[in-house]
Amino acid sequence: MGYRILETHDIPAYLGERGHWDDLTDIRVREVSDGNMNRVFLASCADGTRSLAVKQALPWVRVAGPSWPMSPDRADAEARAYRQVARVAPDKIPVVHGYDPENHALVMEDMSDLRVLRTLLDAGGAYGPHTSARIGEFVAQFSFATSDFGMPSAERKALVAESVSPELCKITEDVVLSEPYVEHEHNHWHPGLDDLAAALRADARLRTEVADLRHTFMTAAQALLHGDLHTGSVMVGTREGAPVVRVFDPEFSFVGPIGYDLGLYWANALVSEERARALGALSDHAEQLRLSWEAFEGGFRRLWPSRVDTFFDDAYLDRFLRRVWTDAVGYAGTEIVRRVIGFAHLTDLTTLPDPVPASRRALLLGRELIVRRGELTDVTAVRALVASLG
Amino acid sequence: MGYRILETHDIPAYLGERGHWDDLTDIRVREVSDGNMNRVFLASCADGTRSLAVKQALPWVRVAGPSWPMSPDRADAEARAYRQVARVAPDKIPVVHGYDPENHALVMEDMSDLRVLRTLLDAGGAYGPHTSARIGEFVAQFSFATSDFGMPSAERKALVAESVSPELCKITEDVVLSEPYVEHEHNHWHPGLDDLAAALRADARLRTEVADLRHTFMTAAQALLHGDLHTGSVMVGTREGAPVVRVFDPEFSFVGPIGYDLGLYWANALVSEERARALGALSDHAEQLRLSWEAFEGGFRRLWPSRVDTFFDDAYLDRFLRRVWTDAVGYAGTEIVRRVIGFAHLTDLTTLPDPVPASRRALLLGRELIVRRGELTDVTAVRALVASLG
Repeated sequence: MGYRILETHDIPAYLGERGHWDDLTDIRVREVSDGNMNRVFLASCADGTRSLAVKQALPWVRVAGPSWPMSPDRADAEARAYRQVARVAPDKIPVVHGYDPENHALVMEDMSDLRVLRTLLDAGGAYGPHTSARIGEFVAQFSFATSDFGMPSAERKALVAESVSPELCKITEDVVLSEPYVEHEHNHWHPGLDDLAAALRADARLRTEVADLRHTFMTAAQALLHGDLHTGSVMVGTREGAPVVRVFDPEFSFVGPIGYDLGLYWANALVSEERARALGALSDHAEQLRLSWEAFEGGFRRLWPSRVDTFFDDAYLDRFLRRVWTDAVGYAGTEIVRRVIGFAHLTDLTTLPDPVPASRRALLLGRELIVRRGELTDVTAVRALVASLG
Repeated sequence: MGYRILETHDIPAYLGERGHWDDLTDIRVREVSDGNMNRVFLASCADGTRSLAVKQALPWVRVAGPSWPMSPDRADAEARAYRQVARVAPDKIPVVHGYDPENHALVMEDMSDLRVLRTLLDAGGAYGPHTSARIGEFVAQFSFATSDFGMPSAERKALVAESVSPELCKITEDVVLSEPYVEHEHNHWHPGLDDLAAALRADARLRTEVADLRHTFMTAAQALLHGDLHTGSVMVGTREGAPVVRVFDPEFSFVGPIGYDLGLYWANALVSEERARALGALSDHAEQLRLSWEAFEGGFRRLWPSRVDTFFDDAYLDRFLRRVWTDAVGYAGTEIVRRVIGFAHLTDLTTLPDPVPASRRALLLGRELIVRRGELTDVTAVRALVASLG
């Protein structure tokens, strides 16, 4: 690949060269890689007054090693997404101090004072009143700005062209939007789900609906997406007494259907709810779909008067938002299903003392969200579906 | 722009340099530019046994001159479309002997023995049994091959990226898919249509439906399209006793909704039918929508078993084809409307002794095709609509 793979001991000189750090006698670095794909280092000075994160994409999947090659260009997609969000919602992403495309490395805000939302939820924490609303606002602001409503036609076409992401989109097309519904070596599940996994694979109606969502994923160039907006891509906490929510890791970013980002978040919220239910620890879980949708819809409607293309009228906005809703419900279903019987599972369920009952509920829910997304026209309908699960 | 604008006297040397012509003592050249945008020259030898066409994109719109600049990159789009069609339907386009991207010039088959379909129809000719069927097959073969059904995912993303065509898409987005529905200096119409033009501009439901079709045009990256498939982009004739149909001028090519190509052809067929009706000269006009749709649908279904991505099941094909149909009906409506009250009108109507009655019927038909496309679920329904016009 011809670029420098950074190790912990390289970071001080690297930050010095790139102009991010002056006093190289006062810097300590530790590796904090956590996700599947990349390496992350934290650099800080002795008194803790200054710190930075360095994230580098390797030419392979970090947890698998060089036997699973993966283009480090995904860091370009990540930097591009951060650049676009920074124009319109800088408070909802980490500060990016610089991107080094040659070495596929981002120098960013240290967020180690914040917690990953999934980790917090797994430990029994609540969302609180701000988290899902911020996520909904994030999707509204980011997607509006990079849609044909927020961006002039020619600029949009350039964004579509530069944002194609064949390798990472293929992962989603395969791992999320087809493999769980066919026999595939990637799939695995708890033996207590054998019957349901077989039933889903034999479900012709489900297959057609997933095919539809998959083709929409491949062809609906509505807006630049995060592309992997699960609760592990969100950091939460408090700074100076104020709640802080940061969306990170947008390396799966591409121009696609807006409902995909919302749907991923909803799926993860619904699964976290099943965990809490299984543990008898439900708190504010049931509110998150409503909070995030209302913030998304409200945010998009607030931006609408600023659209660059006023041929689109208010009645079309209503229709478009209904379609985003319906897509989101469907994608929420696909994300739930693949997280229970597909390649990569969720700690929300896998760390339960008995993951089977919650996983069964989740699978049934996922299937209905996909197949009945056309009838599930509002939050109340989805909540009624959750309430109806056995 | 830094490239050589070819004049008639440059063509012999140009064809010699590019290796298309050996004996430069035996070549005669004439300019036959006909469309709005480009220059076309025909070169032939004295005994007529050999001839070639040279088409060059100017850095402006030919008929307007340098005061209306237009990127000659549109020739790249044209060459790209021909290249893709040549893989799967070489019999339905002119033979391309070479493309010179530096000078935005294509060297192609001489088709001067064929007639432009619109010219033939305007003169009272019939379509004959082959023309519309070939057009339907053309759309099926071209669109299937450049869709996610016919092309592997990564190759498709590269095609989407290289095929963005901001300038020419913007023309369609403006001239076809918005201006006719608002006050715009480009619009003009016969005074006998004043009431209908005003009614269409005041029609809120129509505006929303056009906004929907417009957004689909901007975002639905289904397949590489011709982009301007009217009856002036089709040549017909006979060679060695066999019918010949050639689609040409795909400079508006981009990755968009498949229904757009079909809809444009249908609109032009329906307008030619109104011309014939006004002249009391109806022949096979009423059959063309059925012939082209059946050939398209049949062609797409024949190709389906060869799809590269077998996750897409037969039930999804049915759904997808229904959507293409519905889009095509809507785009047929937008094309009719813009050709009567928008910027560029059709000789089919303008050369009628009294263009008003046929134009009124066409406008009413266009409006209903747009607004009621969801109910007009088959050819019979569209024919019933045509029959119901006052």
